[in-house]
Amino acid sequence: MSKSEIGVTILGCGTVGGGVAALLLQQRKLIRRRTGLDLVLRHVAERDTSKHVVPGAPFCTDAAAAIDDPKTDIVVELIGGTGVAAEFIERALRLGKPVVTANKSLLALRGPELFALAKKNGTCIGFEASCAGGIPIINALVHGLVANRIEALVGIVNGTCNFILTQMTQRGVSYAEALAEAQKAGFAEADPTLDVSGRDAAQKLAILAGLAFNVSVAERDISVSGIDSLQEADLKFAGELGYVIKLLAIAQREKKEKISLRVHPTLVHKGDQLAGVGGSFNAVSVYGHAVGHVLFYGRGAGRTPTASAVVSDVVQIALGVAPLAFKQLNLLPANAKVDLLPFGELSSRYYLRLTARDEPGVLAQVTKVLGAHRISLSAVLQQEAGASRFVPVVITTHLAREGDMQKALSQINRLAALQPPAVCLRIIDAPKEFAGG
Amino acid sequence: MSKSEIGVTILGCGTVGGGVAALLLQQRKLIRRRTGLDLVLRHVAERDTSKHVVPGAPFCTDAAAAIDDPKTDIVVELIGGTGVAAEFIERALRLGKPVVTANKSLLALRGPELFALAKKNGTCIGFEASCAGGIPIINALVHGLVANRIEALVGIVNGTCNFILTQMTQRGVSYAEALAEAQKAGFAEADPTLDVSGRDAAQKLAILAGLAFNVSVAERDISVSGIDSLQEADLKFAGELGYVIKLLAIAQREKKEKISLRVHPTLVHKGDQLAGVGGSFNAVSVYGHAVGHVLFYGRGAGRTPTASAVVSDVVQIALGVAPLAFKQLNLLPANAKVDLLPFGELSSRYYLRLTARDEPGVLAQVTKVLGAHRISLSAVLQQEAGASRFVPVVITTHLAREGDMQKALSQINRLAALQPPAVCLRIIDAPKEFAGG
Repeated sequence: MSKSEIGVTILGCGTVGGGVAALLLQQRKLIRRRTGLDLVLRHVAERDTSKHVVPGAPFCTDAAAAIDDPKTDIVVELIGGTGVAAEFIERALRLGKPVVTANKSLLALRGPELFALAKKNGTCIGFEASCAGGIPIINALVHGLVANRIEALVGIVNGTCNFILTQMTQRGVSYAEALAEAQKAGFAEADPTLDVSGRDAAQKLAILAGLAFNVSVAERDISVSGIDSLQEADLKFAGELGYVIKLLAIAQREKKEKISLRVHPTLVHKGDQLAGVGGSFNAVSVYGHAVGHVLFYGRGAGRTPTASAVVSDVVQIALGVAPLAFKQLNLLPANAKVDLLPFGELSSRYYLRLTARDEPGVLAQVTKVLGAHRISLSAVLQQEAGASRFVPVVITTHLAREGDMQKALSQINRLAALQPPAVCLRIIDAPKEFAGG
Repeated sequence: MSKSEIGVTILGCGTVGGGVAALLLQQRKLIRRRTGLDLVLRHVAERDTSKHVVPGAPFCTDAAAAIDDPKTDIVVELIGGTGVAAEFIERALRLGKPVVTANKSLLALRGPELFALAKKNGTCIGFEASCAGGIPIINALVHGLVANRIEALVGIVNGTCNFILTQMTQRGVSYAEALAEAQKAGFAEADPTLDVSGRDAAQKLAILAGLAFNVSVAERDISVSGIDSLQEADLKFAGELGYVIKLLAIAQREKKEKISLRVHPTLVHKGDQLAGVGGSFNAVSVYGHAVGHVLFYGRGAGRTPTASAVVSDVVQIALGVAPLAFKQLNLLPANAKVDLLPFGELSSRYYLRLTARDEPGVLAQVTKVLGAHRISLSAVLQQEAGASRFVPVVITTHLAREGDMQKALSQINRLAALQPPAVCLRIIDAPKEFAGG
């Protein structure tokens, strides 16, 4: 794109769409001074006219006509979901018009296919806003870390879950109470399922891992568990052991070039940078063979942070930089499926919380089962029984195979001296790089 | 650059130069797979043949001939300093050959001029490695945050100082002991002056602030004090007050669009993300009007992290992305000098440590002087005298003007009840964005 006046059309004027429209109007002069480009907001297409509220924005209701307008040079899709959003994106790409989107659901479902369509039509897709809001993590993976063989990527990429877990940790409230607070504060939807189930984080991980390892990853490749069944007792015990619990999205290079992909609540050592990421903030740690540990931290959602990422994509497209890179870089290659490590073969440390009868020999029974599955104990936390007939027993283990742990768990859950089910969470240790020599 | 085979010539084979040569040779295949580009190492020009030690690297001693070689497409300057390095960079630019450099001293001294020379010759300069080693902070400022009016940039950008301060904080050792350890561990030069004086951090701040505020900044525009006169007592008292001491490089937008620029030891609240940055790591916090607080963390120096940044620049140049961006973006504009806030007009909170005679009324005398200069107390820490005739009195203040504080200090240092000089450090409070709602 070499002309200095660039027509931008936004599809969808919800929270983010409205934010982008406002930011483009507000910062037109700043962007012109920095880049020499005049970004002109052509259309904001929104079916729901009650959302036509950004002052000075050229609203319309016909998205297709807005895309087709010869004066539309760049299409920004902020409708979300995998339905009409996909149709409009395809329409724009077929016209050779570059698309900017924050639509992680769609990219996790059909990213490689849409990227191929963009290439076929000589255009590109900008998707910085699809992961971790305003944090320029996509640009970092694509450009800044290009010389690195990535060993691992570990992220807090769902602000809703992190807000809830921070409340539970800092104030000792239950999951239900913390969720209600998150909803009240606007950090969680009325139906929070997509967030608290871990699915939203998995969709982002599909995109980030695809970029980090140069493969195509689908959401279904990722083992996912959410935060909705976490109990405050586990956050408390984790704290006593020196950990906080975070919902982590983890992609790691394993033996024989296999990749493990998972999203689950994880015990993170308090000395780890990720442990200090509070509230609705996001952070992504990347480990490259040359760069070592780098971490990117910021607001992972919200109107203006996401708009910041969208407009950065618009500018890079308008400069001609993004189309050139997109054409030459083999992003999310459809023909390179990720070579997954089966979840059962994962190696991890574990946290177990058992509810045991207050009688002698229970711990011995448990350690016998664990030992039979080659799992050894790292620490044990057992308190006096007090009034109850049952006492919590908390165990952490050394590294073990996930498959072994699952087999041990099913035996442990049948022990007469225990009240099933045992709670089992994974522990991630601060890699050496965290130590900060 | 549209050909698929790109000739790269490295000038200087010290720690970083050797790292870049090794990384280019090692990752040629990975980079080809990711980008379609074949980066061929043409020459490694190094006068000192005892440094010709990277296996497989095409060494030579004549840098000028290596630059002039028609098969050299990109020149990587890693000689350092402001002498021959500048001559070679100019030579390459005049031939229209793009230059990649990690040379912060040269850029802080003559950046705007060299950038203009590159533009005049239709080429570009890549300088990601000049600040914060492997952290892609330049790319983030130039591209990722382009839609933001930057309000402030606060960084730990000197790994040597951070290593020393971390040792002093965690182990209570003196500055001299910590420096000796840093030298032993390879984190400090035999002559550490450039690092511990704060000058190295100021050179990086000149570059980062120039990009953040779209102005040209020289090293001499920055008020600098180093860590070489810090006493362990101050790290201890800071800790008791809930702070750690970090050498921060700070650029901030002030009233009437003036910019304040400074490097000094600073009390950082323990809840602040920067407080957790330990050892030789670097981190840069950026506050944008749209994105809010973003932070970038990683290794700020060292062979392979810096090489990671250099090769990322080489790839972006070879892709044609960097030349296009450089041409259109008005980076470090020579004609837009920074509009500096005079240091005396800075507003800050302060930490004072006084050495007071153990007699009544001393604190009253001090607060009277401070009050006369419109400075009010926030906290006081005074311990029992013990055996000594003198007791330390630690005071923190509310916001005050730097000029007022300097005047107050000179009066305080004349009080008969005190042993001069009073120690005065600045406090930076966690901006609201840190709070992590």
